[in-house]
Amino acid sequence: MYIPTFDDVLAAEERIRPFIHRTPVLTSSYLNGLTGAELFFKCENFQKAGAFKVRGASNAVFGLDAETAKKGVATHSSGNHALSLSYAAGRRGIPVTVVMPRTAPEAKKAAVRGYGGVVVECEPSTSSREAVFAEVVAESGADFVHPYNDPRVIAGQATCSRELIEEVDGLDAVVAPIGGGGMISGSCLTISKIAPHTKIYAAEPKNADDACRSFKAGHIIADDAPQTVADGLKVPLKELTWHFVSNHVEDVLLAEEQEIIDAMYLTWQRMKIVMEPSSAVPLATILKNRDLFAGKKVGVIITGGNVDLNKLPWM
Amino acid sequence: MYIPTFDDVLAAEERIRPFIHRTPVLTSSYLNGLTGAELFFKCENFQKAGAFKVRGASNAVFGLDAETAKKGVATHSSGNHALSLSYAAGRRGIPVTVVMPRTAPEAKKAAVRGYGGVVVECEPSTSSREAVFAEVVAESGADFVHPYNDPRVIAGQATCSRELIEEVDGLDAVVAPIGGGGMISGSCLTISKIAPHTKIYAAEPKNADDACRSFKAGHIIADDAPQTVADGLKVPLKELTWHFVSNHVEDVLLAEEQEIIDAMYLTWQRMKIVMEPSSAVPLATILKNRDLFAGKKVGVIITGGNVDLNKLPWM
Repeated sequence: MYIPTFDDVLAAEERIRPFIHRTPVLTSSYLNGLTGAELFFKCENFQKAGAFKVRGASNAVFGLDAETAKKGVATHSSGNHALSLSYAAGRRGIPVTVVMPRTAPEAKKAAVRGYGGVVVECEPSTSSREAVFAEVVAESGADFVHPYNDPRVIAGQATCSRELIEEVDGLDAVVAPIGGGGMISGSCLTISKIAPHTKIYAAEPKNADDACRSFKAGHIIADDAPQTVADGLKVPLKELTWHFVSNHVEDVLLAEEQEIIDAMYLTWQRMKIVMEPSSAVPLATILKNRDLFAGKKVGVIITGGNVDLNKLPWM
Repeated sequence: MYIPTFDDVLAAEERIRPFIHRTPVLTSSYLNGLTGAELFFKCENFQKAGAFKVRGASNAVFGLDAETAKKGVATHSSGNHALSLSYAAGRRGIPVTVVMPRTAPEAKKAAVRGYGGVVVECEPSTSSREAVFAEVVAESGADFVHPYNDPRVIAGQATCSRELIEEVDGLDAVVAPIGGGGMISGSCLTISKIAPHTKIYAAEPKNADDACRSFKAGHIIADDAPQTVADGLKVPLKELTWHFVSNHVEDVLLAEEQEIIDAMYLTWQRMKIVMEPSSAVPLATILKNRDLFAGKKVGVIITGGNVDLNKLPWM
């Protein structure tokens, strides 16, 4: 198992620069008042392909040698990694196949196809996803870019926290959602190197609390197909992300479904930005753990904005 | 009738700086591809109180002498001017009364009250609004800050285009929504002075096309209570805004209701920003008049983001 280093992050930064946005950091005096903290929202919902995952995907795709690249890339993903890998492969002009749960939002499937990707559907469980995917790779010989358990992907995601730390001095904490742990691992990789006094909190839906239970147990616990409105956070930790989570994360904080929906609504209403339910989990946990964050400077990663506007969770 | 000058704009800029945001200018490669133009979106949906109207309201409120200010301010408004005047009065610590149509979104009434404003309801027509308002002013002696037919308000709104022109060089055109004409008049005031080669287009719902008919007829035509999803654009031109529209606007472009809703949906989906139906009218007219804008650098004013998230027009 190769553990990516901060040099890999610097290389990723150079490699992906032409293909991604440096996203803005927004603040809200209303939400500062409500939480008692000073919040800095890193808005990856404004990122290319609508999510931070384009960072890791671009790093993987543009790091391939010419011969490997010809056979294309493939992945399985609950959504944003699929869009992102399709976007990156499209920019390089190589084939891309994505295995997606048949229950994934139609908007995400259409967007993958819009970027030139081929969608192969599976059942909405980790086991089905992995079985279908094995067939796809065996047939095409495509390079597998895992959504998070891949050092190239983690080094790419790590560029997000680097931009945040460059923009905001002296953060006491950074809070990011945790599903498979790619964003959190990238944050750990960067922050432990360039801002070692900044604490890293992972925010997770109570309904898909496998990372929290893993964190407490000291080993990976994986659930098959948990149900949560935060559909980007259903997947389990893997060895590589567990390495970062177990070594660098301060705590894993949980939020109930209604708390996630309320935090999402509040952000749309007050900050006027469109973001996914998964992106609302950090704010939900900050609102819930006021004492932990009040008086602190807190970075909050808004991971993506790819939501089905016809099916909003508060409707 | 006092016509505000560019010196008034410079004074407004100084006066309101502590109370407003300098809002970002966003771009979208997707929407550029779709329109063939290079679009620069001035995002007043991120403005304090959620709309550009806080510029004019703050200029009026903070320009009052101490004795006048004591009696407070009052206005009638279909929404955003109400929030904005309440916000500005709250910052100065003076009373504010707002006459609003009883059909205005509950979210807007609640927000006025949240800023400390008193809401007095009227029927949803221009005639009822003006009658109820006359009573309010007679009783309180409050200073009337008209939502748009007021030189202080127009000078304030004019600071928005000034920021846009400062940020983006060489715009061929600026497109802004037109209701009563406050934003358009402010844009005319600034642009005719500092970017005289930039053409100014007003964008109006076909269902409330009184400004377009006025523009063609050469005099003000006012409708009572037109019906459109773009609820900020129902009010008619008045003498002061007519002065700017008749002298400086290149054309008034129209959009159908469904075109406005489609442009709004598209912006939320691709730019990940929350904006009002009124703010979508410029993009709707740009999509409809491709030949007029293709190949051009075009500023687009997104006027506000105060929308009822429980009643989205595409649902």
